Amino acid sequence: MRIGVVAPSSPFERETAARVTALAAKLQPSAELVFHPQCFLSHNHFAGADKSRAAGFAEFANDPALDAIWFARGGYGACRMAEAALARLEAPAIAKTYLGYSDAGTLLAPLYMRGASVAHGPMCQDLVREGGEAAIARALAWLVERDLAALEPGLDPAHPHAAFNVMVLCQILGTPLMPDLGGHVLLLEEVSEHLYRIDRALFTLTSNPAIRKVAGIRLGRCGDIIENDPDFGMDAEAIAKEWCARSGIAWLGAADIGHDAANKVVPFGMTG
Amino acid sequence: MRIGVVAPSSPFERETAARVTALAAKLQPSAELVFHPQCFLSHNHFAGADKSRAAGFAEFANDPALDAIWFARGGYGACRMAEAALARLEAPAIAKTYLGYSDAGTLLAPLYMRGASVAHGPMCQDLVREGGEAAIARALAWLVERDLAALEPGLDPAHPHAAFNVMVLCQILGTPLMPDLGGHVLLLEEVSEHLYRIDRALFTLTSNPAIRKVAGIRLGRCGDIIENDPDFGMDAEAIAKEWCARSGIAWLGAADIGHDAANKVVPFGMTG
Repeated sequence: MRIGVVAPSSPFERETAARVTALAAKLQPSAELVFHPQCFLSHNHFAGADKSRAAGFAEFANDPALDAIWFARGGYGACRMAEAALARLEAPAIAKTYLGYSDAGTLLAPLYMRGASVAHGPMCQDLVREGGEAAIARALAWLVERDLAALEPGLDPAHPHAAFNVMVLCQILGTPLMPDLGGHVLLLEEVSEHLYRIDRALFTLTSNPAIRKVAGIRLGRCGDIIENDPDFGMDAEAIAKEWCARSGIAWLGAADIGHDAANKVVPFGMTG
Repeated sequence: MRIGVVAPSSPFERETAARVTALAAKLQPSAELVFHPQCFLSHNHFAGADKSRAAGFAEFANDPALDAIWFARGGYGACRMAEAALARLEAPAIAKTYLGYSDAGTLLAPLYMRGASVAHGPMCQDLVREGGEAAIARALAWLVERDLAALEPGLDPAHPHAAFNVMVLCQILGTPLMPDLGGHVLLLEEVSEHLYRIDRALFTLTSNPAIRKVAGIRLGRCGDIIENDPDFGMDAEAIAKEWCARSGIAWLGAADIGHDAANKVVPFGMTG
């Protein structure tokens, strides 16, 4: 099992890579982690220029000697290299598994649309979180063993699923990166936003005809909420429930995902 | 000339209303400003509950004794009352002129789609800005006299125009509030955002097939930019130019609009 790591968004540190490598060697000795040198580039906001990130991603995605692609971290920037990266993908890229979340959703979405096996779940950078070793262990257990204990516990074998950060899904909605989520249970999570912005984004999502075709919405954790002035008067779950009610989308309750070490794995599509 | 003022978004203060009324009496003695009592309600983040804001807006919009509707201020909340408000509109609402910007764009958009005369320009709350009297004078000169000096100076009589806050346009894109902007020159402005978020939003806009039908994009001022860590490496104009180049949308240069006292008036549609 060889897992390639790429960083299509914000810069990643060599020290974190070394720590993840050491932990992986202990937890999953049969697996080899291969960090693309692009991970450690730095260009303004990004892990290298758009061309470098597109080239690094395409090289590893197309490499038949790699079984899976694991995203180093999120941040921002995948949408700037997505078009160029996707244009280069060949058959080995579609035969792989991809794991990540947050800004990586910008690539998970079109990869899912193209038939690749993709999942929303922990990334290398999660090691620096409190309790982060559990997140790395969970990600590797799923990548290497397809350990069912790594999965979000409420996945319904009767429906396909997809999971996104709220802002990332808004960002790709209506663009060529957006897959058809009709009939899917849609899991959402958010971090470091004001409640009025979460409300605004859920208006956008639930008012969209494509999103209205989902089988239902479940809301994960919305962490590190930025204080709303004045108080918003509703929490994130109340907001999501209200927009589901207004739009006729089924509200399916809480989800065990989020920008934290407890973030569970959600494979896109059918899991049954 | 009777101008009704409503507040579909954040709360507005009586003291500001009194100051705007006094200034209007001096500048445009032929005009009467009528503040709906809803303007002074307060419910969490909003100028009254969703129902109150929808009712206030619909009452004034449908009142044949009012010639124009002026938005008191932006903030956030119009999308929460828009559907209910729009469902109640009668013929007198379409015969009116509407002036506002920022969150008011959420209502300007569907009102334009329904055939009303709408314009992007200063609101009552702009009086509290430095130099804010000039903004109020400009808004009233346009509402009362259709003073051409109030208009954004680069409007092209050969094309219809529309103007929006970047985040507000992203918010309504793909929803029933979104008008057809095919063939329009699209003016954009932004305030209090990180450059990475402006970049992300311009990806969303310029990647959308409906937005790709615009005649071109002009960028107004992006004020009070929140510091990007690390430095983003491009300013807002460079970002807009790049996404225009990538998407094949004509870049038409700077626009004289923004969240400031110099904000000029942009009537939607043809101005020639």
